[in-house]
Amino acid sequence: MASPWHGGAAAVATITFDVDAETPILAHSRRYADHPMTMSHQSFGPDVGVPRILDMLDETGIPATFFVPGWVAEHRPGLAASIVERGHEVAHHSYSHRPAASMTPAQERADFVRALEVFANQGIDIAGHRAAMWDASWRTPALIAEHGLTYDSSLMGDDRPYRISTDSGPIVELPVHWSLDDWEQYAYLPEPNIGTVIESPVKVAEMWRAELDAMRRYRCLFNLCLHPFLSGRPSRLLALRGLIEFALDRGDIRFMRCRDVAAAVAADPGMAPRAISPPRVDPDVYPD
Amino acid sequence: MASPWHGGAAAVATITFDVDAETPILAHSRRYADHPMTMSHQSFGPDVGVPRILDMLDETGIPATFFVPGWVAEHRPGLAASIVERGHEVAHHSYSHRPAASMTPAQERADFVRALEVFANQGIDIAGHRAAMWDASWRTPALIAEHGLTYDSSLMGDDRPYRISTDSGPIVELPVHWSLDDWEQYAYLPEPNIGTVIESPVKVAEMWRAELDAMRRYRCLFNLCLHPFLSGRPSRLLALRGLIEFALDRGDIRFMRCRDVAAAVAADPGMAPRAISPPRVDPDVYPD
Amino acid sequence: MASPWHGGAAAVATITFDVDAETPILAHSRRYADHPMTMSHQSFGPDVGVPRILDMLDETGIPATFFVPGWVAEHRPGLAASIVERGHEVAHHSYSHRPAASMTPAQERADFVRALEVFANQGIDIAGHRAAMWDASWRTPALIAEHGLTYDSSLMGDDRPYRISTDSGPIVELPVHWSLDDWEQYAYLPEPNIGTVIESPVKVAEMWRAELDAMRRYRCLFNLCLHPFLSGRPSRLLALRGLIEFALDRGDIRFMRCRDVAAAVAADPGMAPRAISPPRVDPDVYPD
Amino acid sequence: MASPWHGGAAAVATITFDVDAETPILAHSRRYADHPMTMSHQSFGPDVGVPRILDMLDETGIPATFFVPGWVAEHRPGLAASIVERGHEVAHHSYSHRPAASMTPAQERADFVRALEVFANQGIDIAGHRAAMWDASWRTPALIAEHGLTYDSSLMGDDRPYRISTDSGPIVELPVHWSLDDWEQYAYLPEPNIGTVIESPVKVAEMWRAELDAMRRYRCLFNLCLHPFLSGRPSRLLALRGLIEFALDRGDIRFMRCRDVAAAVAADPGMAPRAISPPRVDPDVYPD
Repeated sequence: MASPWHGGAAAVATITFDVDAETPILAHSRRYADHPMTMSHQSFGPDVGVPRILDMLDETGIPATFFVPGWVAEHRPGLAASIVERGHEVAHHSYSHRPAASMTPAQERADFVRALEVFANQGIDIAGHRAAMWDASWRTPALIAEHGLTYDSSLMGDDRPYRISTDSGPIVELPVHWSLDDWEQYAYLPEPNIGTVIESPVKVAEMWRAELDAMRRYRCLFNLCLHPFLSGRPSRLLALRGLIEFALDRGDIRFMRCRDVAAAVAADPGMAPRAISPPRVDPDVYPD
Repeated sequence: MASPWHGGAAAVATITFDVDAETPILAHSRRYADHPMTMSHQSFGPDVGVPRILDMLDETGIPATFFVPGWVAEHRPGLAASIVERGHEVAHHSYSHRPAASMTPAQERADFVRALEVFANQGIDIAGHRAAMWDASWRTPALIAEHGLTYDSSLMGDDRPYRISTDSGPIVELPVHWSLDDWEQYAYLPEPNIGTVIESPVKVAEMWRAELDAMRRYRCLFNLCLHPFLSGRPSRLLALRGLIEFALDRGDIRFMRCRDVAAAVAADPGMAPRAISPPRVDPDVYPD
Repeated sequence: MASPWHGGAAAVATITFDVDAETPILAHSRRYADHPMTMSHQSFGPDVGVPRILDMLDETGIPATFFVPGWVAEHRPGLAASIVERGHEVAHHSYSHRPAASMTPAQERADFVRALEVFANQGIDIAGHRAAMWDASWRTPALIAEHGLTYDSSLMGDDRPYRISTDSGPIVELPVHWSLDDWEQYAYLPEPNIGTVIESPVKVAEMWRAELDAMRRYRCLFNLCLHPFLSGRPSRLLALRGLIEFALDRGDIRFMRCRDVAAAVAADPGMAPRAISPPRVDPDVYPD
Repeated sequence: MASPWHGGAAAVATITFDVDAETPILAHSRRYADHPMTMSHQSFGPDVGVPRILDMLDETGIPATFFVPGWVAEHRPGLAASIVERGHEVAHHSYSHRPAASMTPAQERADFVRALEVFANQGIDIAGHRAAMWDASWRTPALIAEHGLTYDSSLMGDDRPYRISTDSGPIVELPVHWSLDDWEQYAYLPEPNIGTVIESPVKVAEMWRAELDAMRRYRCLFNLCLHPFLSGRPSRLLALRGLIEFALDRGDIRFMRCRDVAAAVAADPGMAPRAISPPRVDPDVYPD
């Protein structure tokens, strides 16, 4: 029999890692491949960050979800499997990390399918999707449903999961937010400019603890988005570990993989799919 | 008999919410309607933030003022009424959230009137105005007076209320300031770039508590400007609640709706209207 | 008989206020005069900030120095005198607040002299100069000496006073630094963009206390640069007051007006004037 | 006999100073030489910062490494020798501080060799290199090996040293990171814009202590990059001193010059050289 998606927990936590490696930088311009500092800044993520993160997850006993661009999985053939072997989920994060909302429908479809093919070739089962830069198009949910995936994790319409109806059937949305992303706190690179201020993990952990704690009041999804090239650094990883231990101490927070949250939401009789659509915009009011 | 505007309180606090929804983003460009992440980031405000805020205000027993663009009230027909029903004030915040200072006089007038019509159609009584982006024109105060509103809340000439004389009679100014706005602390969006740093609610609450406390020394108006899409997030809302409780504990701070402050100022015999005008600028000194 | 410039104090503190009012904004473009919010944001400085600051200085018994653009003194005829009457120094801060380094020599001279004329007309005795935006030209020190002023406060070659030789005789430099300026901590305005992050006075006071304390070890000049439109806000002013009280408690920090520091430096036999000049730059090394 | 590079320490710390003086600003444009404030902001580094830093290093007994652009050593003839005399290392930091990755191969080689010639003329022995802006080209490691230097310190592929194979033999990489650089925390200059936020040394010291402590868990290289024009300010220098004392108290952190770390890594039988190369980028995936 169906039960509420949260299974009685005060809040549900999904610890997610976007294993972007070089892709967000190359999506700015492929000429950044000429800069070894920049490329090594990004390759730190899969090469040093991911193994360290996997060990930390083992130690705390937490399941996590890793969103991997197809390009990254293709260029590092053993990476996705090494994550799945440790009990975590690997999910779709576009092929190239170029934003879908800036693509033609044909380009978006080709990029979407190409990533699925990479994972199929590697025998990795994919259940969900997160748009590159979270910048989905209005077509993206239907594309997800059409290909048999069950969820998206790119939108911000709530801080609790919701269902979206599409022409190919409903999907679950596991919403994200800028304030639960390590990029805004830690990312710095002068060119391309991906961020300008480097915050202390002390501040970041304090802010995330406050949000996680407050989310218990509203039965939210604490959907934390991390990047191994950022949060794989030693003090940031220990701050993350401290956050997980804080959550475990609370006793009423449940850690889940995204696919398992999506399945629970889809089975929750109280969660009816919503139609989403662009706002109607009158060119006389907003001329350009 | 007339008494001082502050009624003896050490400081007066107006908790205000600008329910902007999609409008500030569409005012940058209507092409942002093509980005579901961006649109959902904004719709979180009226859809999730406002109900949660109304509950918090009920629990603390504080009256507040909600500045709503006409476009938002029109696209969400029940929104303004749901706020008034809970005992709060709804006020004018332009129709489109495009800045008045960049409009022609005819455009500003049309935008101003269109918002009044939306509220009239919904039976919402409007007493005051806040310019979109606080970016009023020098014509705006007269427009406010001409339409029978009693106050504006867009300027920064003081941190106590003041009266402005216009050709259509005087209005009250309830001044704002960047440091008492959640936008500068929390807003983040890469495109359009609406902010680049996400602060912790711990820092924000500390800063606002310090200002509120210090304002008691100068008998100021603590005119806090919040946005439901930002301050409707769980830990930020709890930080705001903590700030309100801090103020209540002080015992000498009075929470009021903007219209009630404006009425008290207008009735205060010590508050004479001031003329305001642009500075005289010599093109030989400032050539462009 | 001459004694060391610091008179035995561990550190010397000059609390300075740049009373810029509208000038730095108009120097970006005179079209900002069309924006009443922006203009009122700036006029808060002389209208509300300065009287409040003068009261605080009276209460703590500290002498200060106010750098006033000629344009501001001219547009607010009683302002400079009201500062001098309270025992503080008024000094030259250009006429228009346009940066000297971007002017032709003739423009710089005209702007420099025009400010002197304004102060002469108002009977205000001027002993020193601070460049607008600290952006002096290499000609500025000689211009200062030629007009009989004794010091400049715009450069950063040390954190202790030094003397500069010019063709018109030596002047004293009272160096400034970005980290001892309230602008970088508090200034925010979207257009013109004068800053993007608003820090808490708690952080700012902590940072300045640390610097003041550490300067006692190196016998530095704590030359604090404040702006009434920023530091005239209640909690910022109280934080400044707390910093002054911290310094007074130390017992070995001496508060002085800039002109008095300059006189002590000029009389210190250990302070020989230095020549300053632009670095020699080979166009083959730095082609543009 | 060869032993592990870290000699049993939990973490190894290299305190490094990039003595850039005017060069990073002139590399933006030589017209900044016309701005005495800007030039004096930079000259503070070698003129005031370096002597103060050398004294602090004496007091704490810590060896450090100073990366000096050839242009700076040439324009201040006694500078490099004054550092070596105090027991520290001087290393190659380009001639002009223009980024190698933006140069032609011939330009990079000429700039690289010119710096070596300056140091040879001054009798300064050079063992290693750090790229200006860390922005090495893919040719840089071979250039380093070809000229008999043993290490580079510009890349970010790990937070532990690694070896890089080149056509001219292997070199050691001592990786850097944005989060262990004072520039991102302290640098501010409006034009050229080199940074926009000035952090408190209290925050910076807290962040670096956390990273140093966490690095003990992963046996990392704490390769701190400082700039005398920034960290030579009194409270920042005391914060750095506090960090060093914190590390000394830990008892298991070893302070070394970069050349000594490089020698230990080269002698460590467990450290095999890796080939590095640009990622293969398909122009159909990343078209520009």
